[in-house]
Amino acid sequence: MNYRRLGRSGLQVSELSIGSWVTYGNQVDAKAARESLAAAYDAGVNFFDNAEVYAGGQSETLMGDALKTLAWPRLNYIVSTKFFWGIDKGPNRHHTLNRKYLLDAIDHSLKRLQLDYVDLVYCHRPDPRTPIEETVWAMHDMIARGKALYWGTSEWSADEIRSAYDIAERHHLHKPVMEQPQYNLFHRQRVEKEYARLYEDIGLGLTTWSPLASGLLTGKYRDGVPQNSRAALKGYESMREELTHPEKNRAVGELAVIARELDASVGQLALAWILKNPHVSTVITGASRIEQIGENMKAAELATRLTPEIVEKIEQTVGDLAD
Amino acid sequence: MNYRRLGRSGLQVSELSIGSWVTYGNQVDAKAARESLAAAYDAGVNFFDNAEVYAGGQSETLMGDALKTLAWPRLNYIVSTKFFWGIDKGPNRHHTLNRKYLLDAIDHSLKRLQLDYVDLVYCHRPDPRTPIEETVWAMHDMIARGKALYWGTSEWSADEIRSAYDIAERHHLHKPVMEQPQYNLFHRQRVEKEYARLYEDIGLGLTTWSPLASGLLTGKYRDGVPQNSRAALKGYESMREELTHPEKNRAVGELAVIARELDASVGQLALAWILKNPHVSTVITGASRIEQIGENMKAAELATRLTPEIVEKIEQTVGDLAD
Amino acid sequence: MNYRRLGRSGLQVSELSIGSWVTYGNQVDAKAARESLAAAYDAGVNFFDNAEVYAGGQSETLMGDALKTLAWPRLNYIVSTKFFWGIDKGPNRHHTLNRKYLLDAIDHSLKRLQLDYVDLVYCHRPDPRTPIEETVWAMHDMIARGKALYWGTSEWSADEIRSAYDIAERHHLHKPVMEQPQYNLFHRQRVEKEYARLYEDIGLGLTTWSPLASGLLTGKYRDGVPQNSRAALKGYESMREELTHPEKNRAVGELAVIARELDASVGQLALAWILKNPHVSTVITGASRIEQIGENMKAAELATRLTPEIVEKIEQTVGDLAD
Amino acid sequence: MNYRRLGRSGLQVSELSIGSWVTYGNQVDAKAARESLAAAYDAGVNFFDNAEVYAGGQSETLMGDALKTLAWPRLNYIVSTKFFWGIDKGPNRHHTLNRKYLLDAIDHSLKRLQLDYVDLVYCHRPDPRTPIEETVWAMHDMIARGKALYWGTSEWSADEIRSAYDIAERHHLHKPVMEQPQYNLFHRQRVEKEYARLYEDIGLGLTTWSPLASGLLTGKYRDGVPQNSRAALKGYESMREELTHPEKNRAVGELAVIARELDASVGQLALAWILKNPHVSTVITGASRIEQIGENMKAAELATRLTPEIVEKIEQTVGDLAD
Repeated sequence: MNYRRLGRSGLQVSELSIGSWVTYGNQVDAKAARESLAAAYDAGVNFFDNAEVYAGGQSETLMGDALKTLAWPRLNYIVSTKFFWGIDKGPNRHHTLNRKYLLDAIDHSLKRLQLDYVDLVYCHRPDPRTPIEETVWAMHDMIARGKALYWGTSEWSADEIRSAYDIAERHHLHKPVMEQPQYNLFHRQRVEKEYARLYEDIGLGLTTWSPLASGLLTGKYRDGVPQNSRAALKGYESMREELTHPEKNRAVGELAVIARELDASVGQLALAWILKNPHVSTVITGASRIEQIGENMKAAELATRLTPEIVEKIEQTVGDLAD
Repeated sequence: MNYRRLGRSGLQVSELSIGSWVTYGNQVDAKAARESLAAAYDAGVNFFDNAEVYAGGQSETLMGDALKTLAWPRLNYIVSTKFFWGIDKGPNRHHTLNRKYLLDAIDHSLKRLQLDYVDLVYCHRPDPRTPIEETVWAMHDMIARGKALYWGTSEWSADEIRSAYDIAERHHLHKPVMEQPQYNLFHRQRVEKEYARLYEDIGLGLTTWSPLASGLLTGKYRDGVPQNSRAALKGYESMREELTHPEKNRAVGELAVIARELDASVGQLALAWILKNPHVSTVITGASRIEQIGENMKAAELATRLTPEIVEKIEQTVGDLAD
Repeated sequence: MNYRRLGRSGLQVSELSIGSWVTYGNQVDAKAARESLAAAYDAGVNFFDNAEVYAGGQSETLMGDALKTLAWPRLNYIVSTKFFWGIDKGPNRHHTLNRKYLLDAIDHSLKRLQLDYVDLVYCHRPDPRTPIEETVWAMHDMIARGKALYWGTSEWSADEIRSAYDIAERHHLHKPVMEQPQYNLFHRQRVEKEYARLYEDIGLGLTTWSPLASGLLTGKYRDGVPQNSRAALKGYESMREELTHPEKNRAVGELAVIARELDASVGQLALAWILKNPHVSTVITGASRIEQIGENMKAAELATRLTPEIVEKIEQTVGDLAD
Repeated sequence: MNYRRLGRSGLQVSELSIGSWVTYGNQVDAKAARESLAAAYDAGVNFFDNAEVYAGGQSETLMGDALKTLAWPRLNYIVSTKFFWGIDKGPNRHHTLNRKYLLDAIDHSLKRLQLDYVDLVYCHRPDPRTPIEETVWAMHDMIARGKALYWGTSEWSADEIRSAYDIAERHHLHKPVMEQPQYNLFHRQRVEKEYARLYEDIGLGLTTWSPLASGLLTGKYRDGVPQNSRAALKGYESMREELTHPEKNRAVGELAVIARELDASVGQLALAWILKNPHVSTVITGASRIEQIGENMKAAELATRLTPEIVEKIEQTVGDLAD
């Protein structure tokens, strides 16, 4: 496994990491979660992404139990959480980044995770109804109190990220270090265009999510929605249209041909392509099945074999389909 | 219940809230206090105002006992306290905002309230004998130590509030977020004129008190001072003249006519009129009787029915009587 | 008892206060110490001055025991300590204001005093071998950690005090609030000339020591050194010459005449004269005998009777004898 | 023993101090370690240097056990540790100065040392893959949390040290106070040239290591590598060439002649020569044998006898051999 700096920070993250979006606490039970984490750790993964809202807190609880059992040295792994949606609804506990919510949320997350601190804490979405200065202060206070080591954002605009950075610089507070954007072959504008100046100006690091476009890039939706897939779950109806997009699935088919020539799956090719972007610190991959982890890890090796010519072929295949 | 941002902060407060000035610990017993809080909470109220000096500390003790019994999630409610007068007399415990008093006072309030922190802490009055910088530091330290989330002022001049804000900005300290002024149909100058620039410049929020002008706006003093009213209590003699002011009571009579056309009481009309002011974050209402809470809550709905024409009629009725 | 602001701070100190220089732990036993404190407190004194070095730590231990027994509300009294000499000798524990010593010293003082915090903490002397910035940071950290409320200096030059203030302003740290200089009819230059601009520029408060010039101004040395006086103690030899200074003792005789006309002792006159200086926040007086406290307290009343004419007469009596 | 200020700080360090590089936990057992410390302490040494990486943490454990047994007053001694290499390998625990590692490392060091705080904490080497700002913040946070008193660097370039100082000044954080460079008759460029402006500009103090150039300056390598010497240990192969350098050993022979004329060993002369440099705060010497301590301590007295003429003779002997 290769490790990359999280943006300009000194933190080293494995270039492939494990997220638990929806997965833990829903489809996967405790033992499977623990085995997935162990397999990933053994493969060199050191970053395990989480959020308060994933599976209504259950994702943190499961990860906390697994970490306790696994008993790795704390220095060896990086755990994150994210705040914005909250577990329950209510004016100061949902869709907010205000001080009251954030300082309450971190304490509850740490309890579920059974940890003294998380390494990374994210503002899961921007909150236009809270001044960025209030949020920056609360994130700083989490770090000053030893409850987190680094903070960042997820799906914030470039302007919002820069504003947070500037406020922290002016008031001598801890600055945002990383952003967690969606990034894959079909979703690229923000990472490649909107954030372009931030990499140089503030040293922004990226921990990207949805590398396989919710499964679209595995090719499993080329023949419609399989019964056991996430898109068949209740509550994900709106995702189905995108996943069965005819032209995108046709492109996936062409990518599968390229992948096959490299002895790889189309999913591995999609992950490897992301790793070619030097601004990406780590690609967060799914872990619903333990075999998936082994498969995903192979993308790192594959990336070293992606020549400029192959990358060019991939780009032409995707063409205008990316936003 | 609607919720409003506390000024430019991210905190959401119910537009109607509950205060306990004099009430708890004096006229009301523990069970009644708990039932009043519960009824308000069920109606969507999330802000419960308090102060060290209310009923000599008893108001905080009663609220603390009630909150413990009710056992709501801490994120769901907002509690405040205020410091200036102190419970006992003495050079550093009364009429002061010095560091010694403030840091001692917050610890005692938290003990009475049985809470780890209050959400809002106010400087109950300005103290011309303490430099504002000393007070700003002490308020900042309360927040930095996790004993309060936001701080503000009560009945400070615009100049004093701006000075506190500027000192905090210069020294990178937590800034004042809200002010608690008296505000009602007969007392308007400060909120509408003196503070005018502060809403835009520093995002000041208002939690207003005395919406019914100590009862004058309920109409109950139109025929003199009723035996059970607050104005009949010992120690409130000076209030009586204002409450029995002939022209104001005549105006209240006219307002009652407007209210009746809207199927409302004059008190509800007076509350609804305050809610039309977008700079008001929440109107703190009394809660000496549980029925009062239900009556007051109706003002929120009434406010949506106050057309510009009705508001204009109200303004003409009050005319020059307001200060 | 009148109370004065400690310089421009909001802290109110009794204009007469009690010090324990040498006294406690040496000449006075525990019961007497407690009774002296109680008598002073009952007379309205709220400030009790102390230092690590007084009686090798015993002065703090005795005061701590007395305060515990007396069990006054913490808000009602002000306790100080001072650091520079240390109790034991050694490179980082004596004649220093470095970070190591100061942060160690405050913890030991609080243990001896059985207090969570002192109100005032002084740098007992300037230390030319420690940068003022290092000392300012350590004093700030004591306050930030809740171990002291205000900090100041003792016998620092005006330039050193201003430097400390400026460093604190620049780095947003807690600023020095008060200075404890020697000040009496025969020792005036520093308070009246050297510090003159500091009162206005930085709001410096004064807690003055040696109001009776080590007893010279009581008149008891007019006929030589009495056997039980401090000047007869071993280790105070160097003080004797000053105390038996012929011209000064002659002036003391003349002051005694003025005092007698006012039905006062010359010591009371000397104290009252200091109280006429508006820059003095409190005059620290001795307390080796309980009767002394009652006698000293009368100076406050006497000060109100000192007309400009009487003050002028006092000044002429002292003439060039003061430095 | 003489004491010197640690650069421009107020901390007084003995001009000769004790390090434990490799020694403790490898060649020396617990009792010997305790006796060495005690002998040094009795000779006036107050600074005991250590590092996380020395003997894989064992050096700290042994020192911690010894300090506990010896039970000296905490004010009387100065303990250091250093972070960069870590005890175990791994992306965030080795060759790094990132926040995650540093904040984890200090807690583990304090546990091994059985101390509440170390006096000095060093960044053991520069880390080009962590921004200096991140490291400065972490070092500041250690100090702000009371886990260390002063921080510094070891073998950083002048430019890196100045950058750390400037960042701390700009963000109002604790500044680096000292640097621990290698410094001896054969290794001088950094201390004498590269750092030259830092002494004046930022008051940098030096705690120098390898005063005897790993033993070369004791003369024991003049006839090859002795069996029991460090250079004979496994893992120190690369050091052998330097230690058996023919011209340097010839110069050592000439220095031995100068030393003999002063009734001293060549090692004592080499130590004494370093003490003539006023920018050196303390010379860290080895302590593998208790007799060594007594021998080394004599260098302080010897330094007072090094006339300008003798120093000149030493310089000519070394000539171009120094880098």
